[in-house]
Amino acid sequence: MGIIHRYKGQFDWEGVSPEGYPPEREMKGVTIRWLIGSREKAPNFALRYFEVEPGGYTSLDQHAHDHGVMVLRGRGRVLLGEEEFDIGFGDVVYVPPNEVHQFKNVGDEPLGSLCVIPAL
Amino acid sequence: MGIIHRYKGQFDWEGVSPEGYPPEREMKGVTIRWLIGSREKAPNFALRYFEVEPGGYTSLDQHAHDHGVMVLRGRGRVLLGEEEFDIGFGDVVYVPPNEVHQFKNVGDEPLGSLCVIPAL
Repeated sequence: MGIIHRYKGQFDWEGVSPEGYPPEREMKGVTIRWLIGSREKAPNFALRYFEVEPGGYTSLDQHAHDHGVMVLRGRGRVLLGEEEFDIGFGDVVYVPPNEVHQFKNVGDEPLGSLCVIPAL
Repeated sequence: MGIIHRYKGQFDWEGVSPEGYPPEREMKGVTIRWLIGSREKAPNFALRYFEVEPGGYTSLDQHAHDHGVMVLRGRGRVLLGEEEFDIGFGDVVYVPPNEVHQFKNVGDEPLGSLCVIPAL
């Protein structure tokens, strides 16, 4: 059967809990909510909601899988390769395989975005 | 290099055009915007924005690939197997492989949603 995670408002969903990252990762103020993934037995992709606190950033990453991102709240800057771009609500970012990337919150509210990855 | 499709407002994005469906498909009032897909050379997944007019509906579908959906605007009903559920802003729907499904607009504004599929 299909699965619905109802939106509760304030970027929270029924049946989904925010998760932090272990402190050894080189990131700051990042939480992740797995909206669709292995718990839903999704064989092909995962859909996550990321939130980065003001002043926070994701780790400087480079890996074989790609990302599909849409910003839902806040203001950020994304590093793609050697260039940085401002991003805000609705902007769609495609990070291809093996591209260096990092997301930073440059505003004063949380930077929230959806992020698609292939099932790993 | 990564790709950014900037949001222009009104559920339109730079570099992305709305596309209709051929009239022989059993759907009504549906447009699709390919935000990430083969044009971005995305090897693993695609991210699309669907819009269904008031009174419109997607085709009654059943197929091997799965869908990950988040509603961005409007009110709808989704058929999952033999059950229907009301959906609105922020609700996340996972349609697993081979599940019968159909989305209907039951409101008076467009029903807009993001939809992830594996690369086909």
